[in-house]
Amino acid sequence: MRLKDIGEFGLIKRFRRKIKTDSSVIIGSGDDCAVLKWDKSNYQLFTCDMIIQGVDFRKTDNLELVGRKALAISISDIAACAGVPKYAVVALGIPEYMPVKEIDCLTKGLFSLSKKYRINIVGGDISRSAKLLIDVSMLGVVEKKNLCLRSGAKVGDIIMVTGAFGGLISQGKHLKFTPRLKEARYLVNHFKINSMIDVSDGLTQDLGHILEQSSVGAVLYEKLIPLSKGAGTVNDALCSGEEFELLFTVSRDQANKIIKNKRYHFSIIGEIMPKAFGLRLINRKFEYVPVKTKGFRHF
Amino acid sequence: MRLKDIGEFGLIKRFRRKIKTDSSVIIGSGDDCAVLKWDKSNYQLFTCDMIIQGVDFRKTDNLELVGRKALAISISDIAACAGVPKYAVVALGIPEYMPVKEIDCLTKGLFSLSKKYRINIVGGDISRSAKLLIDVSMLGVVEKKNLCLRSGAKVGDIIMVTGAFGGLISQGKHLKFTPRLKEARYLVNHFKINSMIDVSDGLTQDLGHILEQSSVGAVLYEKLIPLSKGAGTVNDALCSGEEFELLFTVSRDQANKIIKNKRYHFSIIGEIMPKAFGLRLINRKFEYVPVKTKGFRHF
Repeated sequence: MRLKDIGEFGLIKRFRRKIKTDSSVIIGSGDDCAVLKWDKSNYQLFTCDMIIQGVDFRKTDNLELVGRKALAISISDIAACAGVPKYAVVALGIPEYMPVKEIDCLTKGLFSLSKKYRINIVGGDISRSAKLLIDVSMLGVVEKKNLCLRSGAKVGDIIMVTGAFGGLISQGKHLKFTPRLKEARYLVNHFKINSMIDVSDGLTQDLGHILEQSSVGAVLYEKLIPLSKGAGTVNDALCSGEEFELLFTVSRDQANKIIKNKRYHFSIIGEIMPKAFGLRLINRKFEYVPVKTKGFRHF
Repeated sequence: MRLKDIGEFGLIKRFRRKIKTDSSVIIGSGDDCAVLKWDKSNYQLFTCDMIIQGVDFRKTDNLELVGRKALAISISDIAACAGVPKYAVVALGIPEYMPVKEIDCLTKGLFSLSKKYRINIVGGDISRSAKLLIDVSMLGVVEKKNLCLRSGAKVGDIIMVTGAFGGLISQGKHLKFTPRLKEARYLVNHFKINSMIDVSDGLTQDLGHILEQSSVGAVLYEKLIPLSKGAGTVNDALCSGEEFELLFTVSRDQANKIIKNKRYHFSIIGEIMPKAFGLRLINRKFEYVPVKTKGFRHF
């Protein structure tokens, strides 16, 4: 059997079946972060994200932005659980003949973002590698009452997002995005959020994780999907990866209140339906159309 | 400036100068693990280690042992701080055409060792990569009173080690070693350990980290260095990497007690001296000889 036969998610499921965890693990593999017992009122969050030259960034990309991105994607995972990032360790694979000046650019981007978000870089590992790669593991903390998971969506919930979607890779926004940490903290501090995820692999693919883990379906409205400048078709917006926007679900009542807030812009894009409904899109002519759920996959 | 001009440790020092941490970080980058505030009587330990095909293992190596090693080296780091490993996340870089059967071998080694040490694998990341690579980030816990660091060696301390040194790579022991977790826990539960490190890059190179961080010197006795079967010269034993034995220092009184224990075998190999003494070896003719301190370095 080859990797492409079972795919990235098949492989992950294969791993998950083999893993047993003890009662100190609230949520193990399968959400944006692992959720671990911490103290009376807080959980610890633990996540890792690796980026590799030629896959997640190009050799010609600005290295300061690459270093920044390496940290930002883990911050986005902590944000998706509504936590606050605290500590990170950084494993670097560095090509043997890379000039020190270039490594300084990389770490400048990484360290300046860690400073901005008050994240302590507390260690790491350096290895020789044919291709430049950066793996960041991050710890965060979240109040028990504020924890957001993929599994909490309820039938009747309104589906909302931050930002706009589509056409980003060509504009380089996937290297410059701001993790939606402030927005996530604002949401949980003022409203009741039922489920949340960050859109890293495509809007419908990541919504799919919420649907699967919450055992629900959903309807999306094409005319409600906020499009980025330069976005092509709605399919582009539904499938483009590396958005790092938040997708979350709330009760209708909470959605009405969130929309009226003056601080941040959030958009309603659809509604959670019973599982049997599946995932459907309503186009501009109010017809149901099939939804392409496949976004970015490594295999 | 090129990487080989400043070397692996020059690069690490360069990073460290740019990093600031807050008061919740007891020890940041620079020891076997980062040490973080936890609760009244315990610290949390945080470490990461990456292994890459072609650098840390060969394409022809048994993949079950490679998976095992990926986890074992982080356990060894937790052991060096005298802690207990608890949680890990695993980032995998997988070549596109690697058969699923081979990935199963890799994860079999990894998961069986995590089970043995009761470590919860709580998440990870999978990416396409030209060369197979595994980065494990691990969390552990250590009682405040038991924490061992590289910086605690005192003049007059006796230098001790677990196991035997040299000639390991050819025998494949670097893939099969048992992290010295039990020994480390036994030591701190029964004796007062002043400093400790795991020997991953060579005995004298790693002893060098203790000397530097404790601002002391040391004398080693050639005839006391325990040699592995198949070890060549004493220089081989002093410089060979990937031993994953523990090196620690204790008062003379504690050393006498440790030597008499019936449970584990520990060897005395030298003594901590004032800093000005530097690092010297006494050979079998009781002459001072220069010590080669360079072990494995990535650059």
